[in-house]
Amino acid sequence: MAEKRNLEVCFSPSLLHLYDTKDKVVVIIDIFRATSTITAALANGAEKVIPVASVEECIALGKQYTGSITAGERNGRVAPGLQYGNSPLEYPIDFIKGKTLNLTTTNGTRLLHMVKDADKIIIGSFLNLSAVCSYLVAQGKDVLLGCASWKDRPNMEDNLFAGAVVSKVKDHFEISCDSAHIALSMYENALTKESLLEYLKVGSHYHRLAGYGLIKDLEYCTTVDLHPVVPVLKDGALTNNK
Amino acid sequence: MAEKRNLEVCFSPSLLHLYDTKDKVVVIIDIFRATSTITAALANGAEKVIPVASVEECIALGKQYTGSITAGERNGRVAPGLQYGNSPLEYPIDFIKGKTLNLTTTNGTRLLHMVKDADKIIIGSFLNLSAVCSYLVAQGKDVLLGCASWKDRPNMEDNLFAGAVVSKVKDHFEISCDSAHIALSMYENALTKESLLEYLKVGSHYHRLAGYGLIKDLEYCTTVDLHPVVPVLKDGALTNNK
Repeated sequence: MAEKRNLEVCFSPSLLHLYDTKDKVVVIIDIFRATSTITAALANGAEKVIPVASVEECIALGKQYTGSITAGERNGRVAPGLQYGNSPLEYPIDFIKGKTLNLTTTNGTRLLHMVKDADKIIIGSFLNLSAVCSYLVAQGKDVLLGCASWKDRPNMEDNLFAGAVVSKVKDHFEISCDSAHIALSMYENALTKESLLEYLKVGSHYHRLAGYGLIKDLEYCTTVDLHPVVPVLKDGALTNNK
Repeated sequence: MAEKRNLEVCFSPSLLHLYDTKDKVVVIIDIFRATSTITAALANGAEKVIPVASVEECIALGKQYTGSITAGERNGRVAPGLQYGNSPLEYPIDFIKGKTLNLTTTNGTRLLHMVKDADKIIIGSFLNLSAVCSYLVAQGKDVLLGCASWKDRPNMEDNLFAGAVVSKVKDHFEISCDSAHIALSMYENALTKESLLEYLKVGSHYHRLAGYGLIKDLEYCTTVDLHPVVPVLKDGALTNNK
């Protein structure tokens, strides 16, 4: 029997330097809401999603590719100069199908660009949980689950998703990373509550987004397996793994 | 009724820059084994414990203060030039009473020296869990629970202790820090297991120390409320809070 591959979890971009990403599959996790929005847009037929770091870069890309959409928020509002926001609900199939989405977000995009030497960079969210897990098992590579966090502070929802992945794939991987076990404990604890969202209600991000009136977004982003796609980064763009 | 004070948890020295420690009570947590050893030594009558960063500094202090003890390990063995190790079991009352312990450790000492502007720096371990909690409630200050971690990677045992503290004091503090809720979830999950040590058996530090034959240390360090003391840092030395 082949030796099991390692799976590790990184709670924050501030801890990324402690992990070797070379030749690994790195899963970028930003549940509220970047990676949920990317998953939804691609599942609904977007041709590709181009994750960019700054609003300026996003505007420039929008001008460069006619017909492409610019999107991104700062502090819960569409950033000045961009067309759309960072809500997965803004990208239904009849709107996004065939389009390119240029997206800038505060935390998720930043982490994605920090990972330099991975074998693959993919996008994880509750919306594509099982698809991501199947992909990880099939690749046969070491895995790093990277939580985008909130301004470098570990957050509940990203770690919870990491725990959900660990829970589903743990028989297929060697897990000697304490952060993975911590995330798994969280997830097991969350399963004793009424729902994942109910569990996350004490979290700072829940409060922030609920304060912006985005409860429907929060509900959507904690819906499990709505979209069985795996967004993979290639040449700077995210597309569905075929 | 007075407004509640804030309580936050920092999972790693690499994240400490994200937290304001000014005028707070900071609890240093290094369960396996620095803060357990400090708690045990002071509870058993040590006059004081002087935490130092390097082996060289420790040796120098030992020469400076006749009759003081030098102690510290590197990779599970007494470091060359020092007299004793980092096991709490090495410091029973008939040996340590009245003595000064100069102690150097890899992670706990380092975090302690990184905190510069706190109102108080105290030492937390399962051995003095309830005493620490009572102290925190009585102080009426904001609190940061600082996990020493293992070479900056979050570890299970330090976070678990943070969760135990959160569990005990949460009605007395405002807790809007996600890491505190993550730690609390871990602790609640651990309570469903046979024992805290049983829960920690998947952790990397358990494996490392068990590999050095230190199971008795691990058992001791997860014994709750054996020593009702609160070690407080003052002028570079730790003594029991009177």
